[in-house]
Amino acid sequence: MTHTKVLDQPNTAIFDELESEVRSYCRHFTAVFTRANGYKLYDHQGKEYIDFFAGAGALNYGHNNPEMKNKIIQYIQNDGITHSLDMMTAAKESFLKAFDQIILRPRGYDYKLLFPGPTGTNAVESALKTARKATGRSTIICFTNAFHGMTLGSLALTGNKFKRKGAAVPLSDALFMPYEHFLGEGIDTAEVLERYLDDQGSGVDLPAAVILETVQGEGGLHAASTEWLQKIEKICRERDILLIVDDIQAGCGRTGTFFSFEHAGLEPDIICLSKSLGGFGLPMAMTLLKPELDTWQPGEHNGTFRGNNISFLAATEALNYWKDEAFSRELERKAELIRASLNELAEACPELKPEVRGRGMLQGIAFHREGAAGEVSAAAFRRGLIMETSGPKDEVVKVMPPLIIDESGLRAGLKILMQSVAEVRRGLM
Amino acid sequence: MTHTKVLDQPNTAIFDELESEVRSYCRHFTAVFTRANGYKLYDHQGKEYIDFFAGAGALNYGHNNPEMKNKIIQYIQNDGITHSLDMMTAAKESFLKAFDQIILRPRGYDYKLLFPGPTGTNAVESALKTARKATGRSTIICFTNAFHGMTLGSLALTGNKFKRKGAAVPLSDALFMPYEHFLGEGIDTAEVLERYLDDQGSGVDLPAAVILETVQGEGGLHAASTEWLQKIEKICRERDILLIVDDIQAGCGRTGTFFSFEHAGLEPDIICLSKSLGGFGLPMAMTLLKPELDTWQPGEHNGTFRGNNISFLAATEALNYWKDEAFSRELERKAELIRASLNELAEACPELKPEVRGRGMLQGIAFHREGAAGEVSAAAFRRGLIMETSGPKDEVVKVMPPLIIDESGLRAGLKILMQSVAEVRRGLM
Amino acid sequence: MTHTKVLDQPNTAIFDELESEVRSYCRHFTAVFTRANGYKLYDHQGKEYIDFFAGAGALNYGHNNPEMKNKIIQYIQNDGITHSLDMMTAAKESFLKAFDQIILRPRGYDYKLLFPGPTGTNAVESALKTARKATGRSTIICFTNAFHGMTLGSLALTGNKFKRKGAAVPLSDALFMPYEHFLGEGIDTAEVLERYLDDQGSGVDLPAAVILETVQGEGGLHAASTEWLQKIEKICRERDILLIVDDIQAGCGRTGTFFSFEHAGLEPDIICLSKSLGGFGLPMAMTLLKPELDTWQPGEHNGTFRGNNISFLAATEALNYWKDEAFSRELERKAELIRASLNELAEACPELKPEVRGRGMLQGIAFHREGAAGEVSAAAFRRGLIMETSGPKDEVVKVMPPLIIDESGLRAGLKILMQSVAEVRRGLM
Amino acid sequence: MTHTKVLDQPNTAIFDELESEVRSYCRHFTAVFTRANGYKLYDHQGKEYIDFFAGAGALNYGHNNPEMKNKIIQYIQNDGITHSLDMMTAAKESFLKAFDQIILRPRGYDYKLLFPGPTGTNAVESALKTARKATGRSTIICFTNAFHGMTLGSLALTGNKFKRKGAAVPLSDALFMPYEHFLGEGIDTAEVLERYLDDQGSGVDLPAAVILETVQGEGGLHAASTEWLQKIEKICRERDILLIVDDIQAGCGRTGTFFSFEHAGLEPDIICLSKSLGGFGLPMAMTLLKPELDTWQPGEHNGTFRGNNISFLAATEALNYWKDEAFSRELERKAELIRASLNELAEACPELKPEVRGRGMLQGIAFHREGAAGEVSAAAFRRGLIMETSGPKDEVVKVMPPLIIDESGLRAGLKILMQSVAEVRRGLM
Repeated sequence: MTHTKVLDQPNTAIFDELESEVRSYCRHFTAVFTRANGYKLYDHQGKEYIDFFAGAGALNYGHNNPEMKNKIIQYIQNDGITHSLDMMTAAKESFLKAFDQIILRPRGYDYKLLFPGPTGTNAVESALKTARKATGRSTIICFTNAFHGMTLGSLALTGNKFKRKGAAVPLSDALFMPYEHFLGEGIDTAEVLERYLDDQGSGVDLPAAVILETVQGEGGLHAASTEWLQKIEKICRERDILLIVDDIQAGCGRTGTFFSFEHAGLEPDIICLSKSLGGFGLPMAMTLLKPELDTWQPGEHNGTFRGNNISFLAATEALNYWKDEAFSRELERKAELIRASLNELAEACPELKPEVRGRGMLQGIAFHREGAAGEVSAAAFRRGLIMETSGPKDEVVKVMPPLIIDESGLRAGLKILMQSVAEVRRGLM
Repeated sequence: MTHTKVLDQPNTAIFDELESEVRSYCRHFTAVFTRANGYKLYDHQGKEYIDFFAGAGALNYGHNNPEMKNKIIQYIQNDGITHSLDMMTAAKESFLKAFDQIILRPRGYDYKLLFPGPTGTNAVESALKTARKATGRSTIICFTNAFHGMTLGSLALTGNKFKRKGAAVPLSDALFMPYEHFLGEGIDTAEVLERYLDDQGSGVDLPAAVILETVQGEGGLHAASTEWLQKIEKICRERDILLIVDDIQAGCGRTGTFFSFEHAGLEPDIICLSKSLGGFGLPMAMTLLKPELDTWQPGEHNGTFRGNNISFLAATEALNYWKDEAFSRELERKAELIRASLNELAEACPELKPEVRGRGMLQGIAFHREGAAGEVSAAAFRRGLIMETSGPKDEVVKVMPPLIIDESGLRAGLKILMQSVAEVRRGLM
Repeated sequence: MTHTKVLDQPNTAIFDELESEVRSYCRHFTAVFTRANGYKLYDHQGKEYIDFFAGAGALNYGHNNPEMKNKIIQYIQNDGITHSLDMMTAAKESFLKAFDQIILRPRGYDYKLLFPGPTGTNAVESALKTARKATGRSTIICFTNAFHGMTLGSLALTGNKFKRKGAAVPLSDALFMPYEHFLGEGIDTAEVLERYLDDQGSGVDLPAAVILETVQGEGGLHAASTEWLQKIEKICRERDILLIVDDIQAGCGRTGTFFSFEHAGLEPDIICLSKSLGGFGLPMAMTLLKPELDTWQPGEHNGTFRGNNISFLAATEALNYWKDEAFSRELERKAELIRASLNELAEACPELKPEVRGRGMLQGIAFHREGAAGEVSAAAFRRGLIMETSGPKDEVVKVMPPLIIDESGLRAGLKILMQSVAEVRRGLM
Repeated sequence: MTHTKVLDQPNTAIFDELESEVRSYCRHFTAVFTRANGYKLYDHQGKEYIDFFAGAGALNYGHNNPEMKNKIIQYIQNDGITHSLDMMTAAKESFLKAFDQIILRPRGYDYKLLFPGPTGTNAVESALKTARKATGRSTIICFTNAFHGMTLGSLALTGNKFKRKGAAVPLSDALFMPYEHFLGEGIDTAEVLERYLDDQGSGVDLPAAVILETVQGEGGLHAASTEWLQKIEKICRERDILLIVDDIQAGCGRTGTFFSFEHAGLEPDIICLSKSLGGFGLPMAMTLLKPELDTWQPGEHNGTFRGNNISFLAATEALNYWKDEAFSRELERKAELIRASLNELAEACPELKPEVRGRGMLQGIAFHREGAAGEVSAAAFRRGLIMETSGPKDEVVKVMPPLIIDESGLRAGLKILMQSVAEVRRGLM
């Protein structure tokens, strides 16, 4: 018994002692993890966890995806280039070709590819620079509850007030317009944006760009409707404003198609990709630019880790999932399963004021009773399920498993979620 | 003959077509690289290159360092955790312990470790936030020809005007003071800083922090003297200004000791590390904070790729180089060899107006005849040596081999450098 | 005939030649004025004009108000102090006493008086500084179509895009929320503000202050309802946000009471006054601060012309109008006359899409047919009536006579307005 | 006796009670002033003061200058226009003609005249806008110890840290270069500027303009040498940077010629005038622009009090002083008298570490013994002489009488200054 207890409390002294107070997930998921495979994680005691978190969307293809794993081991064994800045390498060449053939051409796209530093915020910062350089304007319009990153330019576009405070200087050149239902169901926020842009006295100068997420992964799983997305794109087109889609979390298949906006037929001027782009969970980021926006001079934006070849290798392998529509159809089925399950759950716990949100493999449930989502996440963790919370008050539990999860794994995780909600409800009574 | 020529011109069409115009090194080093080992790179035709570039300082331990390579392969084979955000993992635990035992304790340091996104600019951005939060002040004093990164906060501290233009918005809350000899040999720029800080009418508000590189890796290999560094630290201490050392390029042994400022006895309030920290060339970054500056709330700064466990693994292995002083002594010998060689070279080509610069394994030679450095670099590349240029006018060729290069490799590279200079001189006459 | 024609075209060559292209009113009111008295202006040919412009609200007490005129002449004859910076003078002493007794005490106010430079924008800039210093926060929330001035701090709060462009740098630390009916009749914009303030992910950081005009004099004569004003004040109070009322145009009796918000019972933390405060049309400005906000150090804000004693003298005289309620009652009657007349006019010209706006002696009529307002203003000028246009598209003609205008003058002006509208309508058919 | 004491302590209760703590001069010159004439002020008890302060430079032509006084009285009696925004008036017409004939044409100038709001800071803000609009660049280079005003744009260019703090937000788009001797006698600060501009890594982006005062009236009476001024102009010309001279305090004859830079032959692109421009101490400001910089649209910059006609009237009268060279020659003689007197004084009090500074009728003496200047000013006030202090530590007493002071008045004031210094010295021993 005592033994089990000790097992439940890993020795985290070194983390507590040495790491900055800023550390966060380790406070909720209090295990020291050692191994992972597919949709499962294992801690130092061998305890198994179902992963409904997927590295915050960076592990869409699962932990240690076998094809990628083999390719990487072989590559390293053969002394393949690991780090190359923006020099040319065989691994990068293969990625470029595959991305062109599998992603760009079939969609009729002619984007140029810019490799910023290998993190999402680097992709966003490079997108902002591109938009401002190309238009000569400074303001970027973003949306309430947006999350675009933690470096100064991206943070200015991130809605979370707590995270914004970290800057400790005023954040500028950004303007927050209301996301689709931010002002309530009755108000069309696309019209609000239009009103601000067209009234000559609104104080809102013509922006360089509008940046949006089609589903707000960090901001509470709000999923914009196809109609709203198309309206925003139209508003941009009519006023010569660039449209940037930050597809860092919602892209790479997370909502069912490679890009999250394919169903709406958008053609963004700039697209930001990262997280699962690198396939294996290793850092990688990429910014897609319409050719006419590629006004960069050589070296004007750079970074040491732009050439992470192991990511190029795994990213190339990952693209195989997108060679035909089979994977998308599979994701659609799983998404429906999740949706049905969440709807059922919502009906069962009205007192938690539940609200199902999200789209595709990026769904979840908001509990408007304060604190409930955190309690559910904690209960789930104790039962061997890793689920993140989201939203400005952490009011949403996120169902975001690796895309490659099989149906039994998915059902097992959803069952734990149900049990966890039941546990929280029992605690209420 | 024709055949050879074809070989010399790799098919780079896919890069030209798909990649943004911002790509840069690939324009100078026009090969498609396939393999690398130690201090050698190979292109698709098997041509060998000596590497005096070392991934811009990210490959201090050489390409495919054998110990790291084995550890990584074994780790991946065993389904080790690749990506963990800021959750606890066994690989991270090992790194923390090793860094504490090998680096912090022997030096009497009690820094807290903050893991920002895994790029240098992320480390700098987190340092800026920390300094501004802790002091409640906004200005950061930096130095002419500094390079601190490409995201908005770091770019504001980067001196290069060409790169600054990329932002296309005014860069604020930063102030450039003259680096050690920026105003000529006769002017003590530490006194200039002091004058600005102490005159109540100077327009320079009390800053949150001073940030500096001990050797300006990108800005032209200016190496600050011990005396100047100590003066700057004293100026900070006396006025309650934080001192940040950006040791991203000069640290991790590049100048001969783990931190680049050990010889000067500095105790920075904040230290930024990246590049070779991860050992194997994979992305990693870390910010060290004096404990009293760790005023962060959980999650106030975050990022998806903070937990790159393969880097933790390789970084732990890399720390073995620093367990005793043998490696430092070895670096000292190599640095002397480089210095002697560069001095000799400088004497031999007065008409190129040469000036030997830098410190340790981060040395180089400025040619004040315009264009000469670029010509030397190009000539060296044709002869199988990869050397970067540096400085506001790309006036410096950098000798920055992997630290683990052996003496024969070093001599071979330096010989090519001499031949390349000779070739450029012949072209002059 | 020729003679008359010459008379109609004053020789404006010196103005055209020497003055900057920025000059504006002189392009619409193409006369060289020489004399003025009460509500009448005269040009160099002796032509008389009824003044419905009143120096953009700076001449509430009429041109060359006889009591003020006598006091000023006598004062100058006796070598009274003209210019005193912020030294103590008898004229200033009298003003302070009168303002205390006539304005502050009867209303139960205990504001401190700060004299910035003698222009409205100076008052606003001092208000911004006060609010930011006192709260330690930087953002100021303002409203669409606000006008607060042309210096950098005030311009950031001014909605007009054309005027904002003049800055040619990004304007920061300001945020435009929708004024009362900006988003249409059905949307309560006070709730929109509340939503932004309370959602932790809205991107709107807690502001230092909200600044508003109760009637937007330059922005199109939008007059906020009592209910909306009270809601905004309540929102501020509940969240420790300061409330600034910019009463520069709407104050000093323009809407019927000394302050424009008296009917709503507001108690702003900071009030900006200028324009008619000085009584005689000479520059003066004043900022009222709640005592607890007076955190200023001596000399921390200053300006050469703070001590315009001739304005103190006339301002003291002007306060006599406010010793009892007679003047307010008189203004109420005149305002009703204006309202009735404008309503009648609006009914008569539906094809111009008229909309009566404003409050008190600050009313007007918007013509939603493009260009109509400008044509009406031009026609009125030809007929001897000076009327300004307002609004982001200059779509409003403003009825803003000196408050002291008599009924016959008012009716005469309104009659010309009717005739001018008729003329414009005839031009349409 | 008691009676006298009461007289010495004016009743300042109303000022203390009602005015903001920001009030400043009234704390040093503790009298309530009632009358003034020429270079003399009188308090409520009839005590006479010699004025070596001249309204901080706004009363160059003396208090109640008789010619202006008569003109103003007559104008007001005749119902002349007082306030006209930017409409055309006879008074403005006369001013334009006189300024053209007396100032512009004889000097071969073709400036356009822009009337901003009637304060110095308005003139500076309009100059900044002009420079930024015309160049499309944002940075303005200013100098240590500069004073340009208190509104946000001007304050960013003002060196005094105490005053800068009043903004309570970061001040941006400004850069402080060292004024002539800021870094000590041996360092040519024009070369420092050049170094920053020309080094591509200096972090100093190409500025829109350089703004300077030829004598720093508030910043400690530093007077730039002719050579330095010419170097700065040359640096600007060679790099397409605009040169703005803020001649608000040093202009209008203060240094002996109408513009303060005539002796150096500068041709600034933009000139800011205010203070004594209006002649009588009433608010007025004007910005002179090279015609090619007049890229303004009608109404793009405006302000209610641009058309202060009483100032136009007095300003026109004031220009008569500049019809020939007699006034300049007279000023030269007085300036020499001041200089000789200050030199004598400096020699007599070495223990106060005196340093004579300034030029023309804008001279003074710095006492490097802390507090001495303030003590001298206080002692002088008790003896009936009003003298301001200046400099970042208020280390300078300023001799700045009205230009029209006669020799006996000048000698009388200088004698009191000597006695006051003697009193302070006695206090030391």
